[in-house]
Amino acid sequence: MNVSGKHYRTIWLKEADAPVVCIIDQRWLPHQFIIEELHAVDEIAVAIKDMHVRGAGLIGATAGYGMYLAAIEASHKHSYDDYLIESAHKLKATRPTAVNLEWAVNRQLCAIAKATSVQEKINIAKETAIQIADEDAAYCKGLGVHGIKIIQQLSENKKAKTVNILTHCNAGWLAFVDYGSATAPIYEAFEKGIDIHVWVDETRPRNQGASLTAWELLNHGVPHTVITDNAGGHLMQHNLVDMVITGADRVTKAGDAANKIGTYLKAVAAKDNNIPFYVALPSSTFDWNISDGIKQIPIEERDADEVKYIYGLADGKIQKVLITPKESNACNFGFDVTPSRLITGLITERGICNANEEAILNLFPEHKK
Amino acid sequence: MNVSGKHYRTIWLKEADAPVVCIIDQRWLPHQFIIEELHAVDEIAVAIKDMHVRGAGLIGATAGYGMYLAAIEASHKHSYDDYLIESAHKLKATRPTAVNLEWAVNRQLCAIAKATSVQEKINIAKETAIQIADEDAAYCKGLGVHGIKIIQQLSENKKAKTVNILTHCNAGWLAFVDYGSATAPIYEAFEKGIDIHVWVDETRPRNQGASLTAWELLNHGVPHTVITDNAGGHLMQHNLVDMVITGADRVTKAGDAANKIGTYLKAVAAKDNNIPFYVALPSSTFDWNISDGIKQIPIEERDADEVKYIYGLADGKIQKVLITPKESNACNFGFDVTPSRLITGLITERGICNANEEAILNLFPEHKK
Repeated sequence: MNVSGKHYRTIWLKEADAPVVCIIDQRWLPHQFIIEELHAVDEIAVAIKDMHVRGAGLIGATAGYGMYLAAIEASHKHSYDDYLIESAHKLKATRPTAVNLEWAVNRQLCAIAKATSVQEKINIAKETAIQIADEDAAYCKGLGVHGIKIIQQLSENKKAKTVNILTHCNAGWLAFVDYGSATAPIYEAFEKGIDIHVWVDETRPRNQGASLTAWELLNHGVPHTVITDNAGGHLMQHNLVDMVITGADRVTKAGDAANKIGTYLKAVAAKDNNIPFYVALPSSTFDWNISDGIKQIPIEERDADEVKYIYGLADGKIQKVLITPKESNACNFGFDVTPSRLITGLITERGICNANEEAILNLFPEHKK
Repeated sequence: MNVSGKHYRTIWLKEADAPVVCIIDQRWLPHQFIIEELHAVDEIAVAIKDMHVRGAGLIGATAGYGMYLAAIEASHKHSYDDYLIESAHKLKATRPTAVNLEWAVNRQLCAIAKATSVQEKINIAKETAIQIADEDAAYCKGLGVHGIKIIQQLSENKKAKTVNILTHCNAGWLAFVDYGSATAPIYEAFEKGIDIHVWVDETRPRNQGASLTAWELLNHGVPHTVITDNAGGHLMQHNLVDMVITGADRVTKAGDAANKIGTYLKAVAAKDNNIPFYVALPSSTFDWNISDGIKQIPIEERDADEVKYIYGLADGKIQKVLITPKESNACNFGFDVTPSRLITGLITERGICNANEEAILNLFPEHKK
């Protein structure tokens, strides 16, 4: 996607030969556009854990590059394999909910294990990291190609009047390597000239909607309005939402979807108002080992200070302000699970399917047991 | 209620003989406790409009005192009655959703109209203002006496384990003259030694939960945890919420309840998880003229900057920080309507009833047509 007219991905190697990973440090958006250079797997782990990068796809891609750096570092260690395994554990421990992280790290371990020499291991790790990133972008592009059909249909039903799409959190290109998941059909529709408008949930506590999704859409010229997380139900009751699209951090093989905390509230309200609710995900976000999302998906609990303090711009500087009594407790679950019964459909790179095991496995038959 | 050990109401006359109205300027809580003195009906109107005071009951009580100041000012005007009517219109126009405002102003107009001399009009206006405030406190006390029964029952069902109550916005004593509506049963249960814990929705955009409800509960010693508005659904899915109690700004005679934006999302999630959802209101909050809340209750749209900027404490000062891209649009509906089908019961000063016309009119038969 473009930033001030220049094309960017969210992660890239600084130069083809140098093991330096460049990311957009998303903690400073929308106020400052800062590129960070990461030189070691430990720096990669910090960047994931402290959310310099975030979003299911991008966490996976970043971990992929992390394993590439680990493969280089391992060659200076006492035991190559031990260091690699240790690095894999370290990366997996940074964020518990998004399955892409584990998936990308395991993919690297398998790929690297096939090589015999150290140099070959490093080469394979690099190729695999690039492959994971390229695939992520290609998958997201595919989500757009399929997802646009839903928007096109709504536009036709409304006789080309504005299609209002609500989204929660940032499942945009900043959450992936490019295009995004929930935003891929939106960008595709925008490119095709369909009249769309996006309601952007601000997405407390970290405000990824207000700071990232709004910034993306603004830079790309897509009409949008930022709303509080409280507003969506009222908009739905008054026919101001035609569809909801969110991303996901982990989707079970039965179609339950973990996504940013608050997604479930929008899903249950959409159901109450007969509004279609779609989850867009590349297949790397499926967890083929579990069915019951509410019981089986681990939900990250983050620092309560993310609830008690907010970052924003004042006098040209980013400031942290306290919004609760200092002595009040707060708690901060990062995700919730939307049961499949509330999901109209899953938008994947292979097409759109219902949120149930049979439909999902028909689209991805290689995961049938 | 107590603030630092001293008893306060939210509004009072400075001295019995001086027409000076004192309020707690709630814009600075939880960080600063500031008492503001209001000397004229225009100052009262600004205090309501700019939310120095807010909350259904307190808006009504403040408007009542405003009409008392208007009754004094009118004696210096060309036409006493014209000035009174003009002041009434001015006060009614400050906030559109809470019915208590209109109710209090009309009550003053009726009361004042019965007097013959100017001095008598002023005396009656003063008495009526005090009466409205006293009644509000008494009604809220009554809500507590009835509402505690629900909490007691839940406590018994849980064998005295902690009862977890979720509330949205501030329907606390700061929203009324004393005790509060949603909080009245909570304070009553706390006084009786029932083991309770309150989940406090922060309630964006103005954060009345994080700043006011948390501050109230903290000062009173009630165990509580501040959560984002997004978190309630997840907590409900995991049996961490035993009941929801909210206040209301207007309830139709059929039981639809307008309350702070986002209330509907909690109600629909509570229904989805079989969790009781109660609305607590003094009878002054009923609108006996309408039935369909979604179609008939006017919903205030406030300045979009309330979404784009947040106030908080940094370096000992209250600062305003920007949390969206400056150029992004935002919109800001203040309330939503929870349909009666999602409400387990209404807690009123006369008792608890189902949210339907028959049950409501059985409790308030004087409003049967």
